Amino acid sequence: MNPTRFHWKGLEQVAAQVLSCAGARREDAQLVAQSLVHADLRGVESHGLSRLPIYVQRIEAGLIELSLRPALIVRQGATALIDGKNQFGAVVGVAALDEAKQLARQNGIGFVGVRHSNHFGSCSYYAEQAVAEGLILLVLSNAPASMAPTGGIEPFFGTNPIAVGIPAGEEPPFLLDMATSVAARGKIALAAKQGTPIPGDWAIDADGLPTRDPTKALLGSLLPIGGAKGYGLAMFIDIFCGLLTGAAVGPGVKSLYGNWQHPQDIGHVFLCIDVQRFLPLETFRKSMDEYIRQIKSVPTACGVAEILIPGEIEQRTMTARKKDGIPLPQTVVEELTKLCSAYGTDLSQAVCTA
Amino acid sequence: MNPTRFHWKGLEQVAAQVLSCAGARREDAQLVAQSLVHADLRGVESHGLSRLPIYVQRIEAGLIELSLRPALIVRQGATALIDGKNQFGAVVGVAALDEAKQLARQNGIGFVGVRHSNHFGSCSYYAEQAVAEGLILLVLSNAPASMAPTGGIEPFFGTNPIAVGIPAGEEPPFLLDMATSVAARGKIALAAKQGTPIPGDWAIDADGLPTRDPTKALLGSLLPIGGAKGYGLAMFIDIFCGLLTGAAVGPGVKSLYGNWQHPQDIGHVFLCIDVQRFLPLETFRKSMDEYIRQIKSVPTACGVAEILIPGEIEQRTMTARKKDGIPLPQTVVEELTKLCSAYGTDLSQAVCTA
Repeated sequence: MNPTRFHWKGLEQVAAQVLSCAGARREDAQLVAQSLVHADLRGVESHGLSRLPIYVQRIEAGLIELSLRPALIVRQGATALIDGKNQFGAVVGVAALDEAKQLARQNGIGFVGVRHSNHFGSCSYYAEQAVAEGLILLVLSNAPASMAPTGGIEPFFGTNPIAVGIPAGEEPPFLLDMATSVAARGKIALAAKQGTPIPGDWAIDADGLPTRDPTKALLGSLLPIGGAKGYGLAMFIDIFCGLLTGAAVGPGVKSLYGNWQHPQDIGHVFLCIDVQRFLPLETFRKSMDEYIRQIKSVPTACGVAEILIPGEIEQRTMTARKKDGIPLPQTVVEELTKLCSAYGTDLSQAVCTA
Repeated sequence: MNPTRFHWKGLEQVAAQVLSCAGARREDAQLVAQSLVHADLRGVESHGLSRLPIYVQRIEAGLIELSLRPALIVRQGATALIDGKNQFGAVVGVAALDEAKQLARQNGIGFVGVRHSNHFGSCSYYAEQAVAEGLILLVLSNAPASMAPTGGIEPFFGTNPIAVGIPAGEEPPFLLDMATSVAARGKIALAAKQGTPIPGDWAIDADGLPTRDPTKALLGSLLPIGGAKGYGLAMFIDIFCGLLTGAAVGPGVKSLYGNWQHPQDIGHVFLCIDVQRFLPLETFRKSMDEYIRQIKSVPTACGVAEILIPGEIEQRTMTARKKDGIPLPQTVVEELTKLCSAYGTDLSQAVCTA
């Protein structure tokens, strides 16, 4: 049976309705819904509507602040510090993005630190918006502990992601969005459910030994990319997002799923660069196009059809899904159906009618 | 036989004398010598005085511009663009560092792009200086092609390094300095000389297949950390350092060893952050100390004596080598001895007398 396909605009409306009924302001609800559907459009299901139920549960538990606005603590020179006030991560993220864009337009670069935020969806959501305005954006975030420092056996760092968006011209923009761990915890959980082994470089068990057993991996710790290099990257991101901004760091960042006493207190950094301080945007776009074409013309290994630019496959998926609908996994459809009916709306109104 | 040990100040003097005799201005010669000995002190021999002979050969070949100064092309807001004028990389790097520090003090952050530079030693040389002044520094550089894009089989990107320096208090500072490749080409060349196999994740052969044969690896391409993630990191660094600044990119960056027609035209980015825009420096230093101690107290895997912070082992090596001397490898001693005598100086004056 083919999975049911949903219209992306329809999904945005339904999700916004749920969030709105759960108590979110209308515009916040729309923004959070957009950020989640953005991930589903790009084929990054882990950061898509599969997160809506947990977002709503945290609202119900009183762990998200729906009434306060993210507040500018200080703006000085080309830097700013924002207190997310424990609002939805996406609401906080967009406020920080707007501030970073404004600072970059004024100063060539803008550096915005964010404290007291929540899970803010995928970093690419923000990078894509900056790129659409001809700006470069670098986004960092810390996350709940899942990765041990090199040599250690207990999770300390999150999968602390880094994203970079860079506009191009006719070619798709550069849109890198990566965790500093080799694999996502979600992939290991899935392997555990299916009873299949995982690659040997994904995780260590509780004794610090590499394991292919997903069940043991879940009791252990994720491995960073490049060994000690990825540990270094995760640590610098944690320092930038947490120590510098006043957000939580390391195991102080609360779990989205496992902590029902405290807000997450996640920290982010948004770094925006105005290309035009260095060269005319149109010249830059042309250079990017040439550069991308040069990379794509490198001879490929046997069995490789083409070289892809970071973000390119996701952009193609987005184009296809805007046209043909989003095929949500059955488990997600079931969860969302229940959630929608509990909040007086109906998921089926978003089903594609072809 | 124990290797001969050299006094670091003595090595700086001898190296500066060679560079000076080769035509460099006195202060430029001293600065380049310092940047190389800095790497030897930290135990990073690949970026130390082993590079002095090739630097001198490029001077002799007329490929380094000894008379011009790095020039500020534009300074606007919190950004600047510097033309290295094909001077020594370290001379250009320090000019960019100074500009970035000044911009950060004025605006909270400073972003300096650099074009027309050369091999500038190890990034940690600059990060260490910023950290000593209580500043955060992020350094990026592109480099001659040695790494294929994921799916490709010909080198396109350099090992494009990223370095981050962050001050602490009583604990050693955070000093990450890493290539975006799994291993350095120099390590593979060494394995080829010794006839020993290399780990399977270091390189691909000329057909794009993973290889443990170092000779085949040298004809192929280095692999990036984390697969496509490292490819994405290397590409964003290339775009920042090259397309944005007007330096060369991809295979356009000339080899330090293999190209005798053209200057390297390397590009760098220096991003400096003034901690005090976010919180008092002393408070930050204390938080860093606590944070580092927390990481170091994570339980370790069997056989692991302690958890190290990025840069910690290098800092210990530096302390030991300042005290006990630098044990240069015999091949480097031989090369330097010849070079010194050709330039009217004597390496043996730097030998430790204990």
